[in-house]
Amino acid sequence: MTKPFMFEKPIGMRDTLPNLYEAKQKIRQGMTEEVKLWGYQPIETPTLEYYETVGVASAILDQQLFKLLDQRGNTLVLRPDMTAPIARLAASSLKDVSTPLRLAYDANVYRAQHDEGGRPAEFEQIGVELIGDASNSADGEVIALMIATLKKAGLTHFKIAIGHVGYVNALLLEIVGNEQRTDTLRRFLYEKNYVGYRQHVKSLPLSSIDKTRLLQLLNLRGEFSKLAEAKELVTTEKGIKAVQELEKLLGVLDCYGITDFVKLDLNLVMHMSYYTGPVFEAYSDNLGTPIASGGRYDELLQKFNRPAPATGFGIRLDLLIKALGVKGETQPITCIIYSNERRKDAIELAKEKRQEGLAVILQDLSGVKDVDVFSEGFEDIIYCIGKNGKGDN
Amino acid sequence: MTKPFMFEKPIGMRDTLPNLYEAKQKIRQGMTEEVKLWGYQPIETPTLEYYETVGVASAILDQQLFKLLDQRGNTLVLRPDMTAPIARLAASSLKDVSTPLRLAYDANVYRAQHDEGGRPAEFEQIGVELIGDASNSADGEVIALMIATLKKAGLTHFKIAIGHVGYVNALLLEIVGNEQRTDTLRRFLYEKNYVGYRQHVKSLPLSSIDKTRLLQLLNLRGEFSKLAEAKELVTTEKGIKAVQELEKLLGVLDCYGITDFVKLDLNLVMHMSYYTGPVFEAYSDNLGTPIASGGRYDELLQKFNRPAPATGFGIRLDLLIKALGVKGETQPITCIIYSNERRKDAIELAKEKRQEGLAVILQDLSGVKDVDVFSEGFEDIIYCIGKNGKGDN
Repeated sequence: MTKPFMFEKPIGMRDTLPNLYEAKQKIRQGMTEEVKLWGYQPIETPTLEYYETVGVASAILDQQLFKLLDQRGNTLVLRPDMTAPIARLAASSLKDVSTPLRLAYDANVYRAQHDEGGRPAEFEQIGVELIGDASNSADGEVIALMIATLKKAGLTHFKIAIGHVGYVNALLLEIVGNEQRTDTLRRFLYEKNYVGYRQHVKSLPLSSIDKTRLLQLLNLRGEFSKLAEAKELVTTEKGIKAVQELEKLLGVLDCYGITDFVKLDLNLVMHMSYYTGPVFEAYSDNLGTPIASGGRYDELLQKFNRPAPATGFGIRLDLLIKALGVKGETQPITCIIYSNERRKDAIELAKEKRQEGLAVILQDLSGVKDVDVFSEGFEDIIYCIGKNGKGDN
Repeated sequence: MTKPFMFEKPIGMRDTLPNLYEAKQKIRQGMTEEVKLWGYQPIETPTLEYYETVGVASAILDQQLFKLLDQRGNTLVLRPDMTAPIARLAASSLKDVSTPLRLAYDANVYRAQHDEGGRPAEFEQIGVELIGDASNSADGEVIALMIATLKKAGLTHFKIAIGHVGYVNALLLEIVGNEQRTDTLRRFLYEKNYVGYRQHVKSLPLSSIDKTRLLQLLNLRGEFSKLAEAKELVTTEKGIKAVQELEKLLGVLDCYGITDFVKLDLNLVMHMSYYTGPVFEAYSDNLGTPIASGGRYDELLQKFNRPAPATGFGIRLDLLIKALGVKGETQPITCIIYSNERRKDAIELAKEKRQEGLAVILQDLSGVKDVDVFSEGFEDIIYCIGKNGKGDN
């Protein structure tokens, strides 16, 4: 433990400078507008929540939670996601509002980082939750809205990988027989460690037919036509139902005219343990990490005493901006530099220009150390100096 | 320590429901636009900062800080204000940008509350910092901008109380002779406990002339014409210079045409210990607590190794909204309820209406439990049900 330097920030913490801020703000506004047009209502929840309630329900790894103690000895967490806080809200202040409930958020979430590996410990998510609608239309709607929101942000080359947590669970369980073995295999899939998965499958005390079936799962990625193969691979009712749900979902997506944006990925296993049905991730062509993700979580709300099916998505603004290749921009600013005796003229002039929508800085000449250096970077400089009319000296 | 109920939030933490969110958003947008028109550039800083740097510099009482430990044993704080983080930023990433530097923020800040006394532990501040300009024009500019921003938000009946930390300090010190006694008196002023101040003055081992002078300080509130009285009361150079600064500041405010909004308050003592010169608070006629405050802090930046004079203000959005009497509003939403076979028509119709700027919910009939209850609260309901054209059954 060494004393940090005055200019240092905690691990994974970032500043946003003016040029990036304005670019982010423009993108954010477009996205939240789109979400609003689809009838989702925005809410805010606090940065801190109880660990025992939202912290535990959120299903982010404990070591990734920022924890602290309040005055009464309760453990608090900086919210690691927005789904659990919104579930709390839906079950408390909004408990009398009838479902389906469509809520939207634009909020920072927090994940502790153990080293300065470039991953942010605080990042902004824009997302929605659709609560109380079990239909495939609901799954299709959130995917369609996520695509519309990404397009509104200016993203063009991206794909949504769609999987089904219920399918993976059903298939693995029916072959390997118990939850523990299922978990081990699921972890390889979550880490997208397919080599590890193959090796582990080989080491299992299973028939060669079963091993082949486990390996066949890895092929269930790409065209949606592979759903036929997926249906043949599974024998349990749960597994078959999952495939049927995806078939129906594809029908919904077809109505939205967005099948070009989607592909099948039955290897998709999400880190959020509360997912129960169709899940999805958005990938930009130029980025390895998913920009957005979401899915169905039909069992989370009951933890808050308001049982309800639900689905939703969250888009990571930092990754989206990376994918967009946003370089940052600043608005042009006009600077009026004035001397004391012309202050009133200068203020009047600034007022007029601001009414026209121009950004104008009013600068007392006596407040600047080096006028030449200061003047750089302004769109326009107007001098109001000396006793006579508007000069330009 | 009892386990919190699932729906509970930590002390002082709040949710913002859709109706208030939209009202807040509208007010926030107007305010940040105004700030932008004055050439201030928006930035963001992280929620967590090092206690040793920003935490200590922020000068919020230690017991009001939310503290936690990071993996390396460093103490972190949830930022208690934005001035210290911006000072850090000005001295690091922005150290090569020439001054005067005009920065703006819209951010939540955090103050731990010990009981559920109605005070929020997290609240949003919209504000600016003007760094590197020691002129009275800079003090006048931030006051003028604060007034313009409050007006833009719709506030009409409010006053800005203007004081001078340097004046109070000089006067008290010259009479009572040491820092400790000065501190005691300053604390009464900070708490606006004028009865306590009077009683304490009586108890001091001072001449009756000095006691009278200390009590006269309490009269230095109201019209700016009282500055003459203030100048007579003080004898040190520092004290007289403070009065002269306020005289010049009044001249600047006159040029902005805003003297009707300001009054003198030489009893004003701010809780932020870093203030050094003119300070101010904004009061709405209908609220006892100041909605906004700010002032000059010429010594904070040197703590971050970039010595520079500075001034700024912060407006508390929660209190402003209270003063405005905002009741909340929600946008009208059209709901299209459809059955499976009409999904495509419904999606097409929703698309058209959204392109016209209408907020439209698309709802699969099979996803709703009680259509009558769900239908309440929508601006308009359109049914796309059955095999034929657009019905209204």
